[in-house]
Amino acid sequence: MECGDPVEQVSLRPGMSVDQLMRELARAGAYNGGALARAADIYERMLTDDKTVKFFGLAGAMVPAGMGGIVGDLLSRGYIDVLVSTGANLTHDMIEALGCRHYHGSAFCSDIELRQDEINRIYDVFLPNDAFVVFENFIQDSLASLDPGRSYPIRELLTILGQRLDRGILSTAAAKGVPVYCPAVADSMIGLQCWLYSQSGKISVDAFSDMKELIDRCFSAEKAGALLIGGGVPKNFILQSMLMTPQGFTYAIQLTGDRPDLGGLSGATLDEARSWGKITEDAQAVTVYGDATITLPMLVAAVLERIAR
Amino acid sequence: MECGDPVEQVSLRPGMSVDQLMRELARAGAYNGGALARAADIYERMLTDDKTVKFFGLAGAMVPAGMGGIVGDLLSRGYIDVLVSTGANLTHDMIEALGCRHYHGSAFCSDIELRQDEINRIYDVFLPNDAFVVFENFIQDSLASLDPGRSYPIRELLTILGQRLDRGILSTAAAKGVPVYCPAVADSMIGLQCWLYSQSGKISVDAFSDMKELIDRCFSAEKAGALLIGGGVPKNFILQSMLMTPQGFTYAIQLTGDRPDLGGLSGATLDEARSWGKITEDAQAVTVYGDATITLPMLVAAVLERIAR
Amino acid sequence: MECGDPVEQVSLRPGMSVDQLMRELARAGAYNGGALARAADIYERMLTDDKTVKFFGLAGAMVPAGMGGIVGDLLSRGYIDVLVSTGANLTHDMIEALGCRHYHGSAFCSDIELRQDEINRIYDVFLPNDAFVVFENFIQDSLASLDPGRSYPIRELLTILGQRLDRGILSTAAAKGVPVYCPAVADSMIGLQCWLYSQSGKISVDAFSDMKELIDRCFSAEKAGALLIGGGVPKNFILQSMLMTPQGFTYAIQLTGDRPDLGGLSGATLDEARSWGKITEDAQAVTVYGDATITLPMLVAAVLERIAR
Amino acid sequence: MECGDPVEQVSLRPGMSVDQLMRELARAGAYNGGALARAADIYERMLTDDKTVKFFGLAGAMVPAGMGGIVGDLLSRGYIDVLVSTGANLTHDMIEALGCRHYHGSAFCSDIELRQDEINRIYDVFLPNDAFVVFENFIQDSLASLDPGRSYPIRELLTILGQRLDRGILSTAAAKGVPVYCPAVADSMIGLQCWLYSQSGKISVDAFSDMKELIDRCFSAEKAGALLIGGGVPKNFILQSMLMTPQGFTYAIQLTGDRPDLGGLSGATLDEARSWGKITEDAQAVTVYGDATITLPMLVAAVLERIAR
Repeated sequence: MECGDPVEQVSLRPGMSVDQLMRELARAGAYNGGALARAADIYERMLTDDKTVKFFGLAGAMVPAGMGGIVGDLLSRGYIDVLVSTGANLTHDMIEALGCRHYHGSAFCSDIELRQDEINRIYDVFLPNDAFVVFENFIQDSLASLDPGRSYPIRELLTILGQRLDRGILSTAAAKGVPVYCPAVADSMIGLQCWLYSQSGKISVDAFSDMKELIDRCFSAEKAGALLIGGGVPKNFILQSMLMTPQGFTYAIQLTGDRPDLGGLSGATLDEARSWGKITEDAQAVTVYGDATITLPMLVAAVLERIAR
Repeated sequence: MECGDPVEQVSLRPGMSVDQLMRELARAGAYNGGALARAADIYERMLTDDKTVKFFGLAGAMVPAGMGGIVGDLLSRGYIDVLVSTGANLTHDMIEALGCRHYHGSAFCSDIELRQDEINRIYDVFLPNDAFVVFENFIQDSLASLDPGRSYPIRELLTILGQRLDRGILSTAAAKGVPVYCPAVADSMIGLQCWLYSQSGKISVDAFSDMKELIDRCFSAEKAGALLIGGGVPKNFILQSMLMTPQGFTYAIQLTGDRPDLGGLSGATLDEARSWGKITEDAQAVTVYGDATITLPMLVAAVLERIAR
Repeated sequence: MECGDPVEQVSLRPGMSVDQLMRELARAGAYNGGALARAADIYERMLTDDKTVKFFGLAGAMVPAGMGGIVGDLLSRGYIDVLVSTGANLTHDMIEALGCRHYHGSAFCSDIELRQDEINRIYDVFLPNDAFVVFENFIQDSLASLDPGRSYPIRELLTILGQRLDRGILSTAAAKGVPVYCPAVADSMIGLQCWLYSQSGKISVDAFSDMKELIDRCFSAEKAGALLIGGGVPKNFILQSMLMTPQGFTYAIQLTGDRPDLGGLSGATLDEARSWGKITEDAQAVTVYGDATITLPMLVAAVLERIAR
Repeated sequence: MECGDPVEQVSLRPGMSVDQLMRELARAGAYNGGALARAADIYERMLTDDKTVKFFGLAGAMVPAGMGGIVGDLLSRGYIDVLVSTGANLTHDMIEALGCRHYHGSAFCSDIELRQDEINRIYDVFLPNDAFVVFENFIQDSLASLDPGRSYPIRELLTILGQRLDRGILSTAAAKGVPVYCPAVADSMIGLQCWLYSQSGKISVDAFSDMKELIDRCFSAEKAGALLIGGGVPKNFILQSMLMTPQGFTYAIQLTGDRPDLGGLSGATLDEARSWGKITEDAQAVTVYGDATITLPMLVAAVLERIAR
């Protein structure tokens, strides 16, 4: 066995930039700090590789925690070609785009009192029920504008919603022509609103029709790269999309708080994905374990700094 | 503040039954051991309450780990009224029902060698690629039997698949008339097979049409209870299904390896669900943190022992 | 790469014994359930191997959670030859032996109210301050009985305390002649009491003198095995004790809630210990990730059942 | 219940400084990102409060991961008044100070091969055995310089070792007159070396004599603050040191990868510490869950930037 470079003790300087800090983590090179630094190197290569189709997987309650701004920014800058999200993140994105807000709260409080005060809790974030009234009006109006005689792919439904908004993830994606996939859309407030609409109106959304478009995109991609926030449906849906093509992902980064020994896909290592052929045998891949509300801003700030140079 | 009962030091006896051990954990009453004992009490009450519709959420790679046998058993005994699963668990269930096997493997091995030997890894479980050939034949045959002029709800598609098998979760659910919901079915090998079929044939599966059936069931339920294995789509889909009704879940148990401080729904406490009204203010609810390959068998073995008495 | 045995779907029977359940986990063989089953096999071999010196490492707040009863039972049955503990576990063991109790409480309550009510919290266990008054009297009396002209090894101090009690871990260890080591004894209420005593009296306890006795025991051991609950000082102190001998541990089991990717010793795999020579290259070793308030009772109940046969 | 400030979506700018990023996390304010931002506010107040004695707890394998540089820097700048460490961190600090290096390695490799190549592994850091030869010579020489007729407090022994080195944590602490406590020193290579020395020479180190000095310091402190990296002995020893005084810690920050529901002190919340009186009822306290190789550099870089202004 060979030793690599020596571990350099981290040296901090007041006023250093995020990428200067990231380069210190690279020189130290250990544990998740080292993994985050490797993620920055891979993400820099991925974003500057013109031949690579760039996937972004968005799971976990990231928008209520203010991470939606980063996703919107990456979309604006052209650094996301395909976005796969949970329905919840898109719901909260629409809520913010409609002018409602999430609020700083506490994780240690009485949920019964919150219930009585009509405030919903997401760990230490509070969201008043009012927001869902605004959301309901928006969705019901939007659904009423659809052609009741057509079956819509989920992606198209989300594009239509995005076109009716003027900021946020869905809006920016629609403006940039970036497809947003959400295979589990039924499992969200969007799904509940569609059910509500179907009580009086007619709506038809196909569960599988997005797959053709996505897999065609995969077939035509020279190379593919993925930044995966959390696990869940977005991670698997992105990784499985390449299974039908002769190749796998060339770049893959996951920022997750899960752990591998429980066997679930969310915490599975990217090496495990090599055995399935989801990522290539020689893919540049790294998993950073930790809270993405810390690792995602650090990663993106450092890489934007490198690219802007 | 008041102290409860004293902690009793655990006393083990050779040959004791699983429920005897569970009762020792109840007397100790601390940390996740205590939570598991409370889960047994709640699950016993839930299963013996005739007025309660019993939901079961199945996330995580449970079937490859041999936990599918427990789900099938609970279905056979009439202890599951509504099952919500990830697509992956249903895929692996069909693979086993078709006579293919998962194998003991290792989490510490070369995934590149595995790839070359056509073996897929799920942590320390191995699954040879052959299984997917058998699976493909089964699904393609099944899809060819569908009426190309109809749009199928996902639940109905899964019932049809279950009727064509003679053991396992889907088969038992179909035989017992228990609906199986899988809102993210596109995000699984089932989804990929449907895409494959659609290359030459025609298939239409609606993303939302299951919701009416499910929410009607929720409206008609006098009480509802849920046992949630892992988080992900099954947990949220079950909990949100009661949001449209005037009541929430009366009993709720989750066995999860996640953690609450990351904000994601998978690790969220059930107290958080009270703020949303997903569970009632006075619901009997408990979260047991740990690997469900340990906590699920203990929980079910103990409760079956109590009920059999 | 080779596949092992097929994964058998778990089959539960009402009234089954703990070891019957463990054997189902062995047949499933996956994730931490499989690891726990392998731990049972290793622990059975370790306990029935007459040539093996049996170490037990006790970290985490196990006594307040009722797990002290299991340690006392293993001591009584002769299944522990060397015990290494945190000071906190020994403190809580003495508190229980002196007739004070820990109580069922709640992890979600006002710690400020608890403080005002003079109740100390250990996650969801409550311990009234009164207990520490009883404890103080006991320790101060015990220290007054020591010879002020001597320097005591920590082990001897703990034996003396154990001899003055009639139940619990320290008492049973003293009665059976099993040494209890606690290298970080200063880091506990025992340490604070010794400081208090030294305000007026004289006490001298040597930090290193236990090591000779322990390492001599290691040198003379034909084989060694370790069951490690949690990490911390007990895990490292046990594993490092063999570093000075030509051999390492032949059997090693750790039950821990930590994770390896943070780099700390508490979550480190036992494979990592092979690189240091702490365990032998071909040691039978397994780590079970999870809460020891579940895994320890299951492990010991299953193995006692096997041995009793 | 009241909502706090709105969550602001994070806005990243290429070249932004670490504290500018931290302020974005503060405006988002959620999960561990929000907790880290609160930690920065508390640490800034703590470091700029002249009346506060500043404790630093160092657990986890931080020096092999390059985090020792940060501790040394904080010592140099006068931001640590009392350091409590594991023996392992001090061992690795001495190894680096003696000119030996840790190396970038891999967590996924053959530990048996590493053993044969005489390389020790700490997750993904490699340390060749040679380093321990150099370390042994240094310690044996140092011990030979001690007065065999005296009993040394652990703190004094560590000061003497620090005085014989010219860089690193122990050296800087000795130069600045900052006491370093290591109650579990026996549980480390330092302990093993002391045992080795005692085979031929005489050494006497007292387990408890540091406590008087430390508790006197606590009594004389107007206020006290603690930054705790990891849990283990350093966390408890620091927190318990105030138990004997009428007050508790006014500022407390812990950066830990553990979790509270397992009951162990390492993962326990700082609120739990309020019930014991270890921290004051109105202490400013926060726990950040995650890998300290990421959170520690971010925290310190941000706070140095604020103070330097």
